[in-house]
Amino acid sequence: MASGVALTVPVYVLKGQGRGPSVYIQANIHGAEVQGNAVIYQLLELLQQQQLFGDVTLVPYANPVGCNHKNGEYTLGRFDPITGVNWNRMYHYNGELAARFVSQYPQADEATILNDYQQWMLAEIDQQLEHNIYGLSTGRRIAFQLQRMALQADLVLDLHTGPISSKHLYCPEYARASANYFNIPHTILIPNDFAGALDEATFCPWWDLQQAYQRIGREMDFNKESFTLELGSQELIDLDEAKFDAQSILSYLQAKGVIAANGFTPQTLTRYACYLKDYKVFYAPMGGMVDYLAEFGKPLQPGQPLARILRMDNYSDEDAEPLHYLSLEQPVIPILHFASASVNQGTELYKVFTRFFELS
Amino acid sequence: MASGVALTVPVYVLKGQGRGPSVYIQANIHGAEVQGNAVIYQLLELLQQQQLFGDVTLVPYANPVGCNHKNGEYTLGRFDPITGVNWNRMYHYNGELAARFVSQYPQADEATILNDYQQWMLAEIDQQLEHNIYGLSTGRRIAFQLQRMALQADLVLDLHTGPISSKHLYCPEYARASANYFNIPHTILIPNDFAGALDEATFCPWWDLQQAYQRIGREMDFNKESFTLELGSQELIDLDEAKFDAQSILSYLQAKGVIAANGFTPQTLTRYACYLKDYKVFYAPMGGMVDYLAEFGKPLQPGQPLARILRMDNYSDEDAEPLHYLSLEQPVIPILHFASASVNQGTELYKVFTRFFELS
Amino acid sequence: MASGVALTVPVYVLKGQGRGPSVYIQANIHGAEVQGNAVIYQLLELLQQQQLFGDVTLVPYANPVGCNHKNGEYTLGRFDPITGVNWNRMYHYNGELAARFVSQYPQADEATILNDYQQWMLAEIDQQLEHNIYGLSTGRRIAFQLQRMALQADLVLDLHTGPISSKHLYCPEYARASANYFNIPHTILIPNDFAGALDEATFCPWWDLQQAYQRIGREMDFNKESFTLELGSQELIDLDEAKFDAQSILSYLQAKGVIAANGFTPQTLTRYACYLKDYKVFYAPMGGMVDYLAEFGKPLQPGQPLARILRMDNYSDEDAEPLHYLSLEQPVIPILHFASASVNQGTELYKVFTRFFELS
Amino acid sequence: MASGVALTVPVYVLKGQGRGPSVYIQANIHGAEVQGNAVIYQLLELLQQQQLFGDVTLVPYANPVGCNHKNGEYTLGRFDPITGVNWNRMYHYNGELAARFVSQYPQADEATILNDYQQWMLAEIDQQLEHNIYGLSTGRRIAFQLQRMALQADLVLDLHTGPISSKHLYCPEYARASANYFNIPHTILIPNDFAGALDEATFCPWWDLQQAYQRIGREMDFNKESFTLELGSQELIDLDEAKFDAQSILSYLQAKGVIAANGFTPQTLTRYACYLKDYKVFYAPMGGMVDYLAEFGKPLQPGQPLARILRMDNYSDEDAEPLHYLSLEQPVIPILHFASASVNQGTELYKVFTRFFELS
Repeated sequence: MASGVALTVPVYVLKGQGRGPSVYIQANIHGAEVQGNAVIYQLLELLQQQQLFGDVTLVPYANPVGCNHKNGEYTLGRFDPITGVNWNRMYHYNGELAARFVSQYPQADEATILNDYQQWMLAEIDQQLEHNIYGLSTGRRIAFQLQRMALQADLVLDLHTGPISSKHLYCPEYARASANYFNIPHTILIPNDFAGALDEATFCPWWDLQQAYQRIGREMDFNKESFTLELGSQELIDLDEAKFDAQSILSYLQAKGVIAANGFTPQTLTRYACYLKDYKVFYAPMGGMVDYLAEFGKPLQPGQPLARILRMDNYSDEDAEPLHYLSLEQPVIPILHFASASVNQGTELYKVFTRFFELS
Repeated sequence: MASGVALTVPVYVLKGQGRGPSVYIQANIHGAEVQGNAVIYQLLELLQQQQLFGDVTLVPYANPVGCNHKNGEYTLGRFDPITGVNWNRMYHYNGELAARFVSQYPQADEATILNDYQQWMLAEIDQQLEHNIYGLSTGRRIAFQLQRMALQADLVLDLHTGPISSKHLYCPEYARASANYFNIPHTILIPNDFAGALDEATFCPWWDLQQAYQRIGREMDFNKESFTLELGSQELIDLDEAKFDAQSILSYLQAKGVIAANGFTPQTLTRYACYLKDYKVFYAPMGGMVDYLAEFGKPLQPGQPLARILRMDNYSDEDAEPLHYLSLEQPVIPILHFASASVNQGTELYKVFTRFFELS
Repeated sequence: MASGVALTVPVYVLKGQGRGPSVYIQANIHGAEVQGNAVIYQLLELLQQQQLFGDVTLVPYANPVGCNHKNGEYTLGRFDPITGVNWNRMYHYNGELAARFVSQYPQADEATILNDYQQWMLAEIDQQLEHNIYGLSTGRRIAFQLQRMALQADLVLDLHTGPISSKHLYCPEYARASANYFNIPHTILIPNDFAGALDEATFCPWWDLQQAYQRIGREMDFNKESFTLELGSQELIDLDEAKFDAQSILSYLQAKGVIAANGFTPQTLTRYACYLKDYKVFYAPMGGMVDYLAEFGKPLQPGQPLARILRMDNYSDEDAEPLHYLSLEQPVIPILHFASASVNQGTELYKVFTRFFELS
Repeated sequence: MASGVALTVPVYVLKGQGRGPSVYIQANIHGAEVQGNAVIYQLLELLQQQQLFGDVTLVPYANPVGCNHKNGEYTLGRFDPITGVNWNRMYHYNGELAARFVSQYPQADEATILNDYQQWMLAEIDQQLEHNIYGLSTGRRIAFQLQRMALQADLVLDLHTGPISSKHLYCPEYARASANYFNIPHTILIPNDFAGALDEATFCPWWDLQQAYQRIGREMDFNKESFTLELGSQELIDLDEAKFDAQSILSYLQAKGVIAANGFTPQTLTRYACYLKDYKVFYAPMGGMVDYLAEFGKPLQPGQPLARILRMDNYSDEDAEPLHYLSLEQPVIPILHFASASVNQGTELYKVFTRFFELS
């Protein structure tokens, strides 16, 4: 920082016995999304009582620039205050790497592939971090340092929150079965398209590789999975709720063989899902002050109000209404809404599932 | 504003029959404290069904600069973003006016006093607004225009909210009996010291006048009252809760003879109070992430935790604790806490009643 | 906005005699880049004294949300403060439109092509603006409304500034000859790749169309040009300099036949250019306070200092230096630098031309 | 901070031979006012070559919260972003201390007075820092820690800058003669009224003490002086200019006997002064975009323009003007103006000397 203060990040590594998949878990890449730190606290408490087969690396405060950046009373949410770039859109991805690798390792055995492909990816990150005359932006430097750790794990969990939000999960389409291990009632199934986020940056290269081998006739499964967990609302720390979420993560880790079986099982609950293309933003059709009405996580029938907008300037105007009810013409599940009650025309008011279905 | 846009404020005046006190109610002088607008909406709905003896003036969006000023996702709370000056500390007050008036009107009858003193005050405001070569700051111009309206009323209500907060009331010590008409369980009794806010700017001059007449042997009571109502948390609009609060205000207006009796009566509830000097700020003793624990509005015993602060950087440090519990050594009633879960050392964490008592 | 204030934009249209190309000029899409408004003022003053062949549309304050958005003392520069999205990256572009059009109009005459292709583009914008159940973001609504006007002109000028900056011009590679009409000593030649900006959003579709016709063997030239003019530094209004820049624009308009010849000719000066891929960002290699040394617009030899960074925390540290000189290993022309003297590691410090050459 | 990062401040102490006054110099209490750090760098370079009689303590980055707090591209200027409180208005002052001290030490010798009064002041600071159940705000904690060091020196220099500004000096009325040692052409003479700033917090108690002894008939002079130096504009580092200002400070230190005579003498220049009450703020009479015209530091005749405000929305309006010239009716010296070209009605546009005179 300007005064010379160095910002560092605590990294906790729990060593396993070497016979399970390795795990990387980070929290708080977005400044205001702090609850993941509390979940990492509870994971550390719980993991100390488990038998670990694989290594687990935990990184709270993953973005110390963002997490220390106050903007008035609040912590700045999602982007670099100087450039506007979303902190979770700066990871590295090379869409041509898999094809190039397969052309060089067409017949290699799985262990060699797993090892060498990882080395190729790490070498690309190192190239960016160290051999760059013109330097790196603040966001890329942070992202690449985290990605360097994440790429060394088999399973990656990136802990986020929404603004004011229910819990939901971003899950690669191919890893859909794993969504059932988490106690999270809403899942967004994402395709193999890199859009900059950590989950994509860590699973897309492996999915690419699988498909590149498929094209030369080899069927492979690398057992790599990455998820983004949205653990409720930003600007909140709740250590009790964090314990519940940590147990949900242990249920996934137990299923994957990272920890010895110890009774961590997923809750029985209705899990709704939709595809990313059907996860819609509803923008405010007018400026005003918003009374958010729709309950999160419950299907909302067509015509039922999402919110009502108060416009006191219209109160005595015969041609205008002081209260506007907002609704949609198709069934949706409201997942999150904007953090403030004051909106401009065009503010992201709600995000909703459309064309949703039950996961099974 | 810079592009030439003129910001205006809606002013709604309901005329009464001229035989009751007049009322001035404003909301949203602080940008993020929006719920008062919803209360004004519900007051307008309810007042149309009442018989009005006195005039009622209602001003939502009292500070259109603040209420349209976004700072990231949130609306900027309490101060001019350019100067840092609290929007509610810019009203006019002349501590010498009362003595000067009494020396000139020692024997005047009450009607003359009421009328001429008001004219003196308005003339001072007009002087500031119109005869000032060097101009006025944005905040003073807004404040003086509002104060000009408020000074013409007998009863003044300024609708605010805390950051994350229970409902509470700022009440002049001499008007303590009126606190019982509102359905607000916590009252802060404020002395006759001008600190810049609208309630003080409107009641202090009359209290001064009463005391100045007392010094020459005349006992007078001008029946002027001003309150600041803190209606819960900022960044929230809840029209149902607003209706409840509007009814509570009507209970006060009925008691004061502004509206005809129509069954608006205060709830039976325990009303706690403390003096302003005993309304304490508790500052964060360290930076970190806060799990707020204490329930608002309920007496908290000495040693019981207000909050716990998470410090993940300390997790593996033998000499430090990752969780710090914060408590006080005297009984308090927590009234509000900071809006964010992320704090620096020295952030205002809680405001609490100390040495509190029950109002009766 | 939240209080119901409607933000509008002044649009000035000067009608020509109908025998020259039409022109669209806007300014201030980025909030802090205000000098273009002064240039539009001077253009309006000058154009009233010219004979106009084509229509000229001028739009100052093109983004009233951005231009009224204060962030502390300063106006927020380049992005929506709620979402972080650059205001100049939200225009519409459909990369498949040209091919589709050519397949439908393979043999059409030029007038039909010019007219109908424009209608196709406008229809796409209208579709977005009006037939969208989920609404539009604030930035897209502003962008689409502006783009609707810009798409109806033959020549488009988007007036910007850098942070602290020399004058420079973004020019499509195919329109390189026109760069010589402006009194702007530095030109960045941009390829036909849409990256979201207004110049690209208005010239790329025509370039696409030309190439699509070329693929079926027709050579066409639609005489559409778009430029982004960077008129110095943000947060500055200088009406005298604006007159100089307005005259430079008239020199371009005279050359294109928009106005009758009236002696507006470009200055004789050395015009440097580089390709967009060679226009490099130099990121701060460390946090600190910056004394910017390199003069804008003059070639800087390898090893000559761009800036020095002060690190007072290092003053008494034997292993560190309080002053760090920053230089590059190739010749560059510094074009702009960061607006503040305080930087974090990774802040965009300078933008420089590399592999530059003289335009002729 | 929230992630647990501790912000520290470098403190450089140069020991003297013990026979001259001690000096305390700090810089950058306001985040954007960085040039003082460069001056401290040059002072450290120069002082190493001088013979020191008194101790010199130098504190750059005095407010590491402010100096690392970015608000968009810029550093936040003058106040705590959470509370709005000016960082330079939080020092401690007890107006009753001097009278109490004199009543207890009426006949004490000067050395005892100097020593014990300082101890009393330090004890008050320590009381605030350490014995406070409810804690301290971020700003007070920083201020008290700095004040603790400053109170131990005889001469105090607080290095600031204006927004966009000429150099000027705040000087206590009684120390007026010392203003001539600095190469600063404008001096504001301030009375003995505490308004919260460091200069006042360190000289007012001694001025109080002198006056309290005078009231019991003892004439004393404690040779304590404090100044605020405004070294030009914020958001700029210029190490060459900093060397010039460091030499000007050495001219003062040589005159006061802190360093051995070594040829540091003040420049011959016209030094203008005015009293604090005559240092006026001129507020923008309308919103718009500002072309600042008046030259700093030169007397401006009545009616000459300070600035002109551009209002493009008025261009085609017959009843309004697109350009407004602003002037005053009395001679003034413009000292500084607002940092941005975009203003709201009521923004602090200029600060000017009125009723100014030449210092001699």
